[in-house]
Amino acid sequence: MIQIERQLRLQKIREQMQKNQVDACIISTPVNTYYLHQSIFQGYTYIPLEGELQCFVRRPSDLDFKTLELSESQCRFIRKPEQIIETLQETGLSIPENLWLEGEEMPQSQWARFEKMFAQSHLKNASHALRQARSVKTDFELDQIRRSAKMHEAVYSKIPSIYRPNMSEQEFCIEIEYQMRKGGCLGLFRCYGIDMEAFMGSVLAGDNAAVSSPYDFALGGAGHPSNPIGASWHEAMREGQSILVDMCGNFCGYLDDLSRCFSLGKLPDIAYRAHQVALDIQAFVQENLRPGVICEDIYNGALKIAQESGMAPYFMGCRQQAKFVGHGVGLVINELPVLAPRMKEPLQAGMVLAVEPKMVIEGIGAVGVENTFIVTENGGEKLVNLSDEIIDLLA
Amino acid sequence: MIQIERQLRLQKIREQMQKNQVDACIISTPVNTYYLHQSIFQGYTYIPLEGELQCFVRRPSDLDFKTLELSESQCRFIRKPEQIIETLQETGLSIPENLWLEGEEMPQSQWARFEKMFAQSHLKNASHALRQARSVKTDFELDQIRRSAKMHEAVYSKIPSIYRPNMSEQEFCIEIEYQMRKGGCLGLFRCYGIDMEAFMGSVLAGDNAAVSSPYDFALGGAGHPSNPIGASWHEAMREGQSILVDMCGNFCGYLDDLSRCFSLGKLPDIAYRAHQVALDIQAFVQENLRPGVICEDIYNGALKIAQESGMAPYFMGCRQQAKFVGHGVGLVINELPVLAPRMKEPLQAGMVLAVEPKMVIEGIGAVGVENTFIVTENGGEKLVNLSDEIIDLLA
Repeated sequence: MIQIERQLRLQKIREQMQKNQVDACIISTPVNTYYLHQSIFQGYTYIPLEGELQCFVRRPSDLDFKTLELSESQCRFIRKPEQIIETLQETGLSIPENLWLEGEEMPQSQWARFEKMFAQSHLKNASHALRQARSVKTDFELDQIRRSAKMHEAVYSKIPSIYRPNMSEQEFCIEIEYQMRKGGCLGLFRCYGIDMEAFMGSVLAGDNAAVSSPYDFALGGAGHPSNPIGASWHEAMREGQSILVDMCGNFCGYLDDLSRCFSLGKLPDIAYRAHQVALDIQAFVQENLRPGVICEDIYNGALKIAQESGMAPYFMGCRQQAKFVGHGVGLVINELPVLAPRMKEPLQAGMVLAVEPKMVIEGIGAVGVENTFIVTENGGEKLVNLSDEIIDLLA
Repeated sequence: MIQIERQLRLQKIREQMQKNQVDACIISTPVNTYYLHQSIFQGYTYIPLEGELQCFVRRPSDLDFKTLELSESQCRFIRKPEQIIETLQETGLSIPENLWLEGEEMPQSQWARFEKMFAQSHLKNASHALRQARSVKTDFELDQIRRSAKMHEAVYSKIPSIYRPNMSEQEFCIEIEYQMRKGGCLGLFRCYGIDMEAFMGSVLAGDNAAVSSPYDFALGGAGHPSNPIGASWHEAMREGQSILVDMCGNFCGYLDDLSRCFSLGKLPDIAYRAHQVALDIQAFVQENLRPGVICEDIYNGALKIAQESGMAPYFMGCRQQAKFVGHGVGLVINELPVLAPRMKEPLQAGMVLAVEPKMVIEGIGAVGVENTFIVTENGGEKLVNLSDEIIDLLA
């Protein structure tokens, strides 16, 4: 099974290599290693444009190549990356003219080492193309994400029963995290980009949803100064506040993303109107999650709905507004593509997107919704079956 | 307060700059940003060897420079890093001859951008020197770590009461995590290095402690294929197994590290003998945590105790053995220095080290201990007051 999937994924990577006239690609990040092998080791995978890939493993020192469905000749244990080129030379393999490395992820110091090693090659940046390869999922990957979404749904359906009077935002967050873990969530919140860090997700009550954060997530929250995102407050949540729950659904290595809005009692009317506009935007986006539709057109359409309904000041934040309405999801929470301005990329069947129209109203909090969809010929396939409405925790 | 601390920390960084003949340093990673500002923003801090530092902020867009205890002239909002050099030129500041960037952390693609921008400067790698600057803590930082350790201790003292008959390793881990969060743990497990990823820490029962992992942590555990570390098993833990609990103590942005060993009933004699050797090693290391002692000498002394007692085959793992007995801790779990072979660095007062002599015996599990110590003239100051002994959860 691993081998069949590896072939499908290698094919996508090699299409990108061919298009970019690259002869070989070396992968070393945990995410791309997992993408290829459904397993993580510390080391390098050397992918020639044609012929067998080679794994150069540093750790674990007793890695079993059979569990990775690799042949013995495809796995070598090394102490240092210089052994990659030594091996190529020893085995008479050609040194690539153009070599891809993960330039958006590999630190400069490592890159410099490869530059020295592969002095005859042109080193180029593979990261964006690898993310593009990952953006269209195989059927197996889609099933993994469907599975995560179903487990995520089961946990979220319990949220109303988790709430207790006088709970703080922080306490509510911890109880939801606990149910996520008991429901099978692995916990790890994998993001792309060294600036992006979060624990399991966000619970934002009232005006904490309006606090700007340094991260490029949809919403902010004060969190802690050392990781300013999400829940922060220790005082009791109050009637009239909305609570937005947005936890990362990492139930099997593949992630889904899911947000639901709750209220303590009845919210001011504007909250329900804003929420309805978010649902209208979601319906518009879902309808357009079809092959060939251009990403920025969807964002612009969503923005137009927000503007025409007078909700633009609340759309995707108030003090700081996120400039997207949806993002790819898969092995990391922020995969390609992004439904954002200037994204000229057409959607393809099998892409998976988290669509998250959200509105932040100072004095109330965040409303809106987030669901994960698969791009199909018939529009977005929604992966969970939960109500999108605001649920009153006091009702 | 932030400003006073910033001055102390800047002084350490500038000593490193002077020693390495560097005129300016640009910091952009979350960890070093937090180190300087006790707050995180997305952007850059430009540190000239002399004169005022400058912050170039991308996010949050409404960052309040006053909360950072900076003057208005020290904070500029930018959209792209090229505005750094434009600002230097506009304000008549000199372009550095030798410029430091975080080369072990900054991705190649960003580095290349700075190379273009600072075409007249020599770019050099600051990462190791910044880690060295961070390795000796200020009194305020020591208090933060002491605080984390005390909160960590309070949670660990509850562990015996968390255990229920027939719990799986996985369930026990989740219950401990939940108590950690309720006890004030922020959750985020910050590591140095793109290969290092873990959720909140490890609970290892029986032979799962013997499973080699791709990471450079002391012990492994199968975890999940997408993050192979720590708890993994869903079947009930069994009598005769040891359980090692090793959670990251991030209670305030500053971390401590703490492991304790538990048993289900009585373990075979060898487990208690191995545990005693781990305690002997801890006592030897603690005695040597004094200014001037060389890191590798401590490792070699520890290894010698393991060898002379016949415990070398179990020391720091069995199938794969970690080549260190302690590591710095602070803003990340793996700070400098490391008590490991070839580490010629002398200890300094105010360094903080997690000392973790552990033994893995197949058929039983891991024994041993981990405590966080401050280097002082009188040897290591131990930060928690918990028993180091194996606690029987069935007693």
